[in-house]
Amino acid sequence: MIGITLPDGSVKQVKAGTTPMDVATSISEGLARNVISASFNGEKVEASTPLTQDGSLVLYTWRDDEGKQAFWHSSSHIMAQALEEMYPGIKLTIGPAIENGFYYDVDLNGHNISEKDLPAIENKMLEIAREKHEFKMRSASKKEALDFYQKQGNQYKVELIENLEDGTITFCDHDTFTDLCRGGHIPNTGIVKAVKLMSIAGAYWRGDENNTQLTRIYGISFPKQKDLKEYLELLEEAKKRDHRKLGKELELFTFSQKVGQGLPLWLPKGAALRERLENFLKKAQKKAGYEMVVSPHIGQKELYVTSGHYEKYGADSFQPIKTPNEDEEFLLKPMNCPHHCEMYKSKPWSYKDLPKRFAEFGTVYRYEQSGELHGLTRVRGFTQDDAHIFCTPDQLDEEFKKVIDLVLYVFGSLGFEDFVTQVSLRDPDNPEKYIGDPELWEKAEQAIVSAVQDKGLDYVMETGEAAFYGPKLDFMVRDALGRSWQLGTIQVDYTLPERFELTYKGSDNELHRPVMIHRAPFGSMERFVAILLEHTGGNFPLWLMPEQVSILSLSEKYEKYAQKVLNLLENNEIRALVDNRNETIGKKIREAEMNKIPYMLIVGEQEEKDGTVSVRKHSEGDLGTMSVEKFSELISSEIEKNSVEFNV
Amino acid sequence: MIGITLPDGSVKQVKAGTTPMDVATSISEGLARNVISASFNGEKVEASTPLTQDGSLVLYTWRDDEGKQAFWHSSSHIMAQALEEMYPGIKLTIGPAIENGFYYDVDLNGHNISEKDLPAIENKMLEIAREKHEFKMRSASKKEALDFYQKQGNQYKVELIENLEDGTITFCDHDTFTDLCRGGHIPNTGIVKAVKLMSIAGAYWRGDENNTQLTRIYGISFPKQKDLKEYLELLEEAKKRDHRKLGKELELFTFSQKVGQGLPLWLPKGAALRERLENFLKKAQKKAGYEMVVSPHIGQKELYVTSGHYEKYGADSFQPIKTPNEDEEFLLKPMNCPHHCEMYKSKPWSYKDLPKRFAEFGTVYRYEQSGELHGLTRVRGFTQDDAHIFCTPDQLDEEFKKVIDLVLYVFGSLGFEDFVTQVSLRDPDNPEKYIGDPELWEKAEQAIVSAVQDKGLDYVMETGEAAFYGPKLDFMVRDALGRSWQLGTIQVDYTLPERFELTYKGSDNELHRPVMIHRAPFGSMERFVAILLEHTGGNFPLWLMPEQVSILSLSEKYEKYAQKVLNLLENNEIRALVDNRNETIGKKIREAEMNKIPYMLIVGEQEEKDGTVSVRKHSEGDLGTMSVEKFSELISSEIEKNSVEFNV
Repeated sequence: MIGITLPDGSVKQVKAGTTPMDVATSISEGLARNVISASFNGEKVEASTPLTQDGSLVLYTWRDDEGKQAFWHSSSHIMAQALEEMYPGIKLTIGPAIENGFYYDVDLNGHNISEKDLPAIENKMLEIAREKHEFKMRSASKKEALDFYQKQGNQYKVELIENLEDGTITFCDHDTFTDLCRGGHIPNTGIVKAVKLMSIAGAYWRGDENNTQLTRIYGISFPKQKDLKEYLELLEEAKKRDHRKLGKELELFTFSQKVGQGLPLWLPKGAALRERLENFLKKAQKKAGYEMVVSPHIGQKELYVTSGHYEKYGADSFQPIKTPNEDEEFLLKPMNCPHHCEMYKSKPWSYKDLPKRFAEFGTVYRYEQSGELHGLTRVRGFTQDDAHIFCTPDQLDEEFKKVIDLVLYVFGSLGFEDFVTQVSLRDPDNPEKYIGDPELWEKAEQAIVSAVQDKGLDYVMETGEAAFYGPKLDFMVRDALGRSWQLGTIQVDYTLPERFELTYKGSDNELHRPVMIHRAPFGSMERFVAILLEHTGGNFPLWLMPEQVSILSLSEKYEKYAQKVLNLLENNEIRALVDNRNETIGKKIREAEMNKIPYMLIVGEQEEKDGTVSVRKHSEGDLGTMSVEKFSELISSEIEKNSVEFNV
Repeated sequence: MIGITLPDGSVKQVKAGTTPMDVATSISEGLARNVISASFNGEKVEASTPLTQDGSLVLYTWRDDEGKQAFWHSSSHIMAQALEEMYPGIKLTIGPAIENGFYYDVDLNGHNISEKDLPAIENKMLEIAREKHEFKMRSASKKEALDFYQKQGNQYKVELIENLEDGTITFCDHDTFTDLCRGGHIPNTGIVKAVKLMSIAGAYWRGDENNTQLTRIYGISFPKQKDLKEYLELLEEAKKRDHRKLGKELELFTFSQKVGQGLPLWLPKGAALRERLENFLKKAQKKAGYEMVVSPHIGQKELYVTSGHYEKYGADSFQPIKTPNEDEEFLLKPMNCPHHCEMYKSKPWSYKDLPKRFAEFGTVYRYEQSGELHGLTRVRGFTQDDAHIFCTPDQLDEEFKKVIDLVLYVFGSLGFEDFVTQVSLRDPDNPEKYIGDPELWEKAEQAIVSAVQDKGLDYVMETGEAAFYGPKLDFMVRDALGRSWQLGTIQVDYTLPERFELTYKGSDNELHRPVMIHRAPFGSMERFVAILLEHTGGNFPLWLMPEQVSILSLSEKYEKYAQKVLNLLENNEIRALVDNRNETIGKKIREAEMNKIPYMLIVGEQEEKDGTVSVRKHSEGDLGTMSVEKFSELISSEIEKNSVEFNV
């Protein structure tokens, strides 16, 4: 008998040789139907692997990431079998599960596969799946393994095996198919009910462009047809909401090859949107006692040597800027904190002056490989909604809570209701990794945890994930499509005050080191706008919309009246435009809808006579006719409703 | 007889050998009394130089820069004589007139002169002056000249003479004193009535630190004692208003050695001031149809090669920023225009869309030698209140006028009432220096001149001063101390649209090149704030003041009431603070005065009881007691009065 410990801590005594699936069955039939993978003592095992010693067992279903990985890894075996049967002589290389689905890189060995062949492959896969073949792992000696693939002439697998240690090599068989494999499968092919092959791409063997070019086929699979349908719909929606696409359509920003990749140019509507976001945060920050400052985008190399950023970013980032004649070197700033520390140093402080909160929409520059760049989410220059709070250790607790309040206000105002937080703490086993007094660390970590609990936040604690300079709290929001994004961050810092020798005079008349809090609720303006675009699909909260109202004239005759309506709205600080083109009203409405303009006001003869407008709301339709004043009140109250004040 | 043409075009027939002074006397006794220098056919001459041929004569008085230069140049001779008499054996080197006064560099040859010796030298100078010695020029051969100084053992003058051509060497004598000199003197020493030696400094012979160190004595002189008094008062006032001093006292900005020279850090009050200026301009620009954009602070080198800035700034400025692994080079942007051109290129335009006006508070970086840096007026990074107008050639005239209106509005709102403009035109003799169609140039120049005349501006035209890319209009303001500063600029540009291949579709359905206007009413935020500080001495217009009101409690007992007053004012958007320190009211008032806070509200027992405040105005004193509401109305109406709206 062996003892199997389950995640709830209970221990089951079972016969040696019992499989994870047997354990599931012993718990419930329902669970057994859903189990698709398992881990034993932290190692991936098959549901059918006999357990031979005491240990901890975790059973995975489709809901778990581990379950999905086993599902997709197994699906890549099924695809490989289908490909071998349909295209005899192809050579398989590697075929892993990925974040969404799986791929296999194959050497087609003279065959040709194009997008139009994918449905046939899918059908073949489903046929294999329906036959419910079991996945069976077996060990092989290095010689057996090499023989197997040498016979096939598959130099890729041979190369892989040559790099493996004898005694560690395993194969997985199902039906007539065999693959070199480290394990982690679903019980049998039968639970794969839906398959979609997404695309074909080229890929070099081992990612090296000097090697043979292989064909990569991407696919995804699901345990239910419904899941696939939902996934494809989500994908379709995500494509529509791609911020790069929306940014172009809504004329928010652009990129230029000449200016350089990863350096966004904010066009008028985007710059105005960004400014509204900045003003929104400025207003809340002012209430919370922050003061705006402005610092340059470069600093002497020496500044970043002092701060430690040169050591961290130096070699991998934008290189130092030399100057003619003089022996000075500057760096593009990767962070605003060193500048703010120097500002703090511009005069002596007393404990009575603290906390001091310096805020700046500071544009920083960090080099990213061109292949890593992506729209506004991975750029080379971005504007942080940065602030640094200099406070006494005693004030840390309260300051941290105040920052959380501000972050929650920002998320709430912008429609991010669904988020989790992560508290990153020291690794207590490696105290040498961290800078600062352990007592202060202890205090800061407690401050963060108690603040998070106090505020009733959903949080996970990650030991060992703290920055070397202090513990931190990160906010991960889930967008309307269920995707997770890291946004705001709040970090405690003991290092910079030390490195910059910052001081304040305490009530004891002695000099002490302040603590710093770094924080950015948006993270960066670029990233935040990108995520807001993908979250809302461009339908921002009304107060944020570049254009809130479009006045559509039924014909050019009504231009004067349209202009009058425009002026009245503009006097009430409503952002409106007139579409007085010589086009049909149908076309004007369609375009306004496409441009996501929340309200359309149609004006013609009757409206001009009555001093009214016919109101249409974006994606809702006709709201009827009303006086211009009434509409102005309606929209103003809607704007007011969704721009809640920040209360400290 | 010779013909002497005067500046008014009239020609006087006089005997050969007549001097400029004779001509002056023949015009009026008054003029003769005031003439101190002259030019003949564009060459500097003495008032006593006999004229021997036909030519144009200009007579200069103290009012003319040329007159002042002769006055100060002559004064340096007088100082040199005084020094030689008081410190026998010293060696003179060079002693020019400068912008304000003159200096002489001397090798003291063992003597010692300190600040406390200056009054005695001044007295000696005035003694010489009173003796009314005439300045007389005479030629000398190179040999004579060398002999003269070799005998004295003056190696400096010997070195100077060795570099001169024989036949071009002249001396100037007055009284017992002789100096190597190119001429340009006042008639006699007697018109120097007031002298002030300002300071002593070290200076290397020929500015080379490997040479002997000389002693430089700076001085200034005037034709009236009253002029000297005024000058010294102005100097005193300028010292008080030095923006570097005020900026520190008012905590507007700071510099840090670690961040780097010439890179200002804007502290909270300065950043807020700057933001108010930006918002003020943003509001006016919005009315005038500008759209804000945001661009990065770097661009690929290629961008500036295209724009021509690399050629112009490349070698002398911040050097290219290299990147790891990839073959890219970036430059800190010296100007915003290339980025705005790339934004313009992000979509096709029709003539109906123009003019398009992109505005940005864009921070640019230009390298200056550390010796050239000065507070906020000469920096290495500064934020331009930049905009680029893209228009059709037909729109240029009207757009230019609109920009002038905006500049005038800005100057008027900020109290710069006294300014002149300079229209910089092509040199018609060197058409090859300029880029663009001569017909368009002609049109643009006419547009500028007619706009300037239309607006009734005080202007000078400078032929040959245009930029190679287009004609321009510069605004020079005179500050409260009579000093002249270059502020705003409006420039027409045909080159960038060509270099960036910008186009719009005309009504003829063909592609055309737009014209660009570059403009910056402030010039730069840094320079403008500096000048505004020196102009106002920190007493900004009320709407701009960092703190408009200081509430001074008579004792800590009244803190609660002071806070209540503060809240009421803040609700009315008035910037106020409470001074509740345990200090005497006298000290609190003095500090508020020193901090230039426009209004002080004193609150004590009586005020709390009555709900009133005792109002003091900065540098004016007591305004009596009034209700908080009444004061709030008073200050609000004053703020409103001096923040005039921009009307387009």
